[in-house]
Amino acid sequence: MAMKLYGTVTPNVQRVILTLFEAQVDVDKDVKLVLVSLSAKEQKQEAFLAKQPFGVVPCFEDGDLILIESRAISRYIAEKYQDQGVPLLGKTSEERAIINQWCEVEGQNFTAAALPMLREIFRAANEKRPVDEQIVAAGESKLGQVLDIYEAQLSKYKYIAGDDYTLADIFHAPMINSLLRLKKEVFTGRKHVIAWAKDLISRPAFQKTIETNQKWAKEEL
Amino acid sequence: MAMKLYGTVTPNVQRVILTLFEAQVDVDKDVKLVLVSLSAKEQKQEAFLAKQPFGVVPCFEDGDLILIESRAISRYIAEKYQDQGVPLLGKTSEERAIINQWCEVEGQNFTAAALPMLREIFRAANEKRPVDEQIVAAGESKLGQVLDIYEAQLSKYKYIAGDDYTLADIFHAPMINSLLRLKKEVFTGRKHVIAWAKDLISRPAFQKTIETNQKWAKEEL
Repeated sequence: MAMKLYGTVTPNVQRVILTLFEAQVDVDKDVKLVLVSLSAKEQKQEAFLAKQPFGVVPCFEDGDLILIESRAISRYIAEKYQDQGVPLLGKTSEERAIINQWCEVEGQNFTAAALPMLREIFRAANEKRPVDEQIVAAGESKLGQVLDIYEAQLSKYKYIAGDDYTLADIFHAPMINSLLRLKKEVFTGRKHVIAWAKDLISRPAFQKTIETNQKWAKEEL
Repeated sequence: MAMKLYGTVTPNVQRVILTLFEAQVDVDKDVKLVLVSLSAKEQKQEAFLAKQPFGVVPCFEDGDLILIESRAISRYIAEKYQDQGVPLLGKTSEERAIINQWCEVEGQNFTAAALPMLREIFRAANEKRPVDEQIVAAGESKLGQVLDIYEAQLSKYKYIAGDDYTLADIFHAPMINSLLRLKKEVFTGRKHVIAWAKDLISRPAFQKTIETNQKWAKEEL
């Protein structure tokens, strides 16, 4: 039975699709992509809430297993397919610990700083109004502090958790892509972060993620 | 060589101590607790920033491994001692996935809703001023939505990720304790959440966590 991924075009959904591609899952064949129309508020309807009580995307099914939270879904996929594709989880307990550390930094620091700012920029554009400069300035300041630490880390290593691409890079990639599109000034002067960001979004699996996600979203139009 | 835990009295530090006790680590013998005085701003001093660039507690050392982020540290400890104490990580990939899902819900939903409110209550008390009612009302509302989902889950299972106590319960316990102390009204009318909360904080490992944390903090006085 095919796995099912419920979602639309959001960084959290892209995180899961990217993990599938990096793990060399045959997405066309083995994953059924089910569009959840946010404009029709399908994520708040009873049928979806029965699977995902928080009323947000993504939601994932594999047989009887129903899973929510993009990072937990990605971790499940990385573990299920650990013998194929790029090794994402580390080989030793020390490697796993460092990867998990940067996964937590992503959720608790990087995205916590970037998300309110990106959401405001996105909403202001949609509503054709000026952005709330206070929200953006607060986001730039918080994210700047995080990116200074990333710059130091990435001056020593090619990827965020060491010299290998891992789940911690996957966790970051969709939000990095959104920042490059909507607020790329945050990277200015941080050359190692810029090199890393460009590397992340130029990977074939990331390119396929964006294509797949866009194609899928056209159903909504 | 003993492991080292740098910290003081905070829920994030308690998360790590609790994991050590649940994993039946002999904390007195095998873990050196190093007090980081927040009142002296030691967490922002160079020596500490070299280990923990974000300038927050906890920080953990095991031999050459330096680890930050309480959830990543707890996961490392749970994995290192998986053959002793309470099994915290699940046996099958499905069990692990569900545990990881609730670990993510804790960080991204539960604590994200509770923390700004608790921080405001704590600061207002310290500064002997009234709380900002807007922050508290927003926290109550957001946390209430999360706890409604928890109530449904805990009406079916004894613990948050199923009938066994796991890492996902550990992740929640310190913040549950803070809520019970500072804002217990949020639990009103949610009897399954209340039973779970009482179970979490009455466990011997949690009681030892609080005692250890308090004893350690007395050094600061």
